Amino acid sequence: MLPSVKLDLSGERFTVVYRARYDGTDPWEVARHIAVEQTVEFPADLVPEGDIRDHVVGRIEAMEVVDERHVDVTVSYAVEITSFELPQLLNVVYGNISMRAGVRVVRLDVSERLLTAFRGPRFGRDGLRDLLGVPDRPLLCTAIKPMGLSSRELADLAYRFALGGIDIVKDDHGLTDQPFAPFAERVPRCAEAVARANRETGRRCLYVPNVTAPFEKMLERAQLAKAVGAGGLLVAPGIIGFDAMRRLADDALGLPVMSHPAFLGSLIALPEHGIAPAVLFGQIARLAGADAVVFANHGGRFAFRREDCDGIVRQALAPMGPIKPSLPTAGGGMTLETVGEVCRSYGPDIVVLVGGGLHQAGPDLVESCRAFHRCVSEALASPSA
Amino acid sequence: MLPSVKLDLSGERFTVVYRARYDGTDPWEVARHIAVEQTVEFPADLVPEGDIRDHVVGRIEAMEVVDERHVDVTVSYAVEITSFELPQLLNVVYGNISMRAGVRVVRLDVSERLLTAFRGPRFGRDGLRDLLGVPDRPLLCTAIKPMGLSSRELADLAYRFALGGIDIVKDDHGLTDQPFAPFAERVPRCAEAVARANRETGRRCLYVPNVTAPFEKMLERAQLAKAVGAGGLLVAPGIIGFDAMRRLADDALGLPVMSHPAFLGSLIALPEHGIAPAVLFGQIARLAGADAVVFANHGGRFAFRREDCDGIVRQALAPMGPIKPSLPTAGGGMTLETVGEVCRSYGPDIVVLVGGGLHQAGPDLVESCRAFHRCVSEALASPSA
Repeated sequence: MLPSVKLDLSGERFTVVYRARYDGTDPWEVARHIAVEQTVEFPADLVPEGDIRDHVVGRIEAMEVVDERHVDVTVSYAVEITSFELPQLLNVVYGNISMRAGVRVVRLDVSERLLTAFRGPRFGRDGLRDLLGVPDRPLLCTAIKPMGLSSRELADLAYRFALGGIDIVKDDHGLTDQPFAPFAERVPRCAEAVARANRETGRRCLYVPNVTAPFEKMLERAQLAKAVGAGGLLVAPGIIGFDAMRRLADDALGLPVMSHPAFLGSLIALPEHGIAPAVLFGQIARLAGADAVVFANHGGRFAFRREDCDGIVRQALAPMGPIKPSLPTAGGGMTLETVGEVCRSYGPDIVVLVGGGLHQAGPDLVESCRAFHRCVSEALASPSA
Repeated sequence: MLPSVKLDLSGERFTVVYRARYDGTDPWEVARHIAVEQTVEFPADLVPEGDIRDHVVGRIEAMEVVDERHVDVTVSYAVEITSFELPQLLNVVYGNISMRAGVRVVRLDVSERLLTAFRGPRFGRDGLRDLLGVPDRPLLCTAIKPMGLSSRELADLAYRFALGGIDIVKDDHGLTDQPFAPFAERVPRCAEAVARANRETGRRCLYVPNVTAPFEKMLERAQLAKAVGAGGLLVAPGIIGFDAMRRLADDALGLPVMSHPAFLGSLIALPEHGIAPAVLFGQIARLAGADAVVFANHGGRFAFRREDCDGIVRQALAPMGPIKPSLPTAGGGMTLETVGEVCRSYGPDIVVLVGGGLHQAGPDLVESCRAFHRCVSEALASPSA
């Protein structure tokens, strides 16, 4: 037997609510599994007495029957077990238990002290609005693509988007460092093209290149982006980790960060598993520093449901101690026809991302961007339409 | 309309087989969605003519009906679109399409040229066996835990495990930099404890600390681990990204890397979605440099099925161009009772990971490790039992 242990713990705990399938068996089995698996991962009867058993093992705080197949289990954890580091926080919330089918994180309540370990978005909603000089309307966003165009052609697209009044022109998330448009060539050209358009319009469109990159190249690319006048950084935390995004947001670069959902889909696609979109995009991405967080709007090509999207928007903007709100960014198959509905359902604190839809709207991209603006203005003018 | 584009492509392509649910609708719809989504993400009718349309867009190479609800779609991609970088390879294979429910990667055929972009495991199966001086039997692995023990207590466990003949003593993946056993204190003590046991036994047990860490601290911790004589590095690529693992494996540190499955569960837990375990653990983790790759054995606490595990073991050891084989590592609720079955079903090229089960086997851990050895020897002596 291991000896009894006395630890110096603050007593502060944070909680996670898991919706767990129990299929008519004992719901306490799955609750106990979660509490042990996410902490000591040790035979329950052999856990040392004292503070490990009493405080380090997850504590089942509540158990609520949802329906005959599901329970909501609230588990609290001592803040110290996270090391106050994002990777270990993610591990405690959903590391090993992700391998058990039918356990979904539906709520995360990060305690005050734990929140102070994270800076969250450097700019957030208000900072991003200040950078853009757009105090209160929905922000317009698009992406330069398709992959395969040259840096010059992509820069030309960026120029026309900025000229037409788009607020945020981002790289398609598939543009990295391909030989046909290498990062070190594409990013300076696009940044210059957007700056030129800004001089002509008097607006402050931001060009946001993709810095989802190999470990040793990410900061290098971010620094290059900053040096040539990019206005933000796009990153896919599903691919290179939420903590890499935090690093970009913490960096003295001082650029806003936009989170892209690629490779995160398995966490949200199936309603009985993974992490609720409101938690993943509205809380975790925000803790990890996303000033704007892209999700795929419902009714598009993907598995997001209306309540998922409502939850993301609500949670990204909800109070969260000292952590600034992120701007939710609705994309994924949006067209000029659906822009109005998006603005009306989510309200003004939204980034509307229309990608291919702008090309579908007609051959004159500058004019299509203006039409995009009109769709937003009309939606604001008739909010109940 | 965008202009026709001529690109300088090699013509080499790699292929991914997706098992897609089509529910009685047109299976070509999902096939076309994948091919477009994973590449140009652009309205198909507006994709520029020439090489983007002909070569950059994913090419549907085959379509095979699996049953009345599923098809296997083989899509090939030009190697250039990966930038020959792991993050973008992952994005092409499963980035956005992860957000469509019911699409699973079931096979990945990386082309020769693309394989040469990755070094894979530095040691691999044979290198790890050389380090340990164990040419042909299954390797014995355990973890120091539970979280909450002090560095001294964890080091004492590591010493006893090494004394009892364990080959690989790893940190529990939940041990990071908690105040009760900080990395900079725990790792030197455990490394020293294992070295001391090695001097007594004449064996070469490896201590493998967990370096799943914030972006800016990962390499620092790996370097500290190396400096104090650790024998390998444990990392959870689901948390900090597969490319972070590649960075550790590529590093001049020259330590073997062990991959832990935490936070990857959503990719494998549900049979209609995600990435087949054989591909995720047997190919992607291997491309990303894992010398040993931990998975949870079937029949334990998690969602792995027998065929999943068989697939991981087969694929981790299968020929893959210049990439060395990884050693599959079966864990997740193993006890001394199940060790024999594991050895018999997977054969000698396996790492058997018994964690809490060693504590359950009795109060004398050194003796339990010896019993673990006997279980392995007996299984080898009676392979058909």
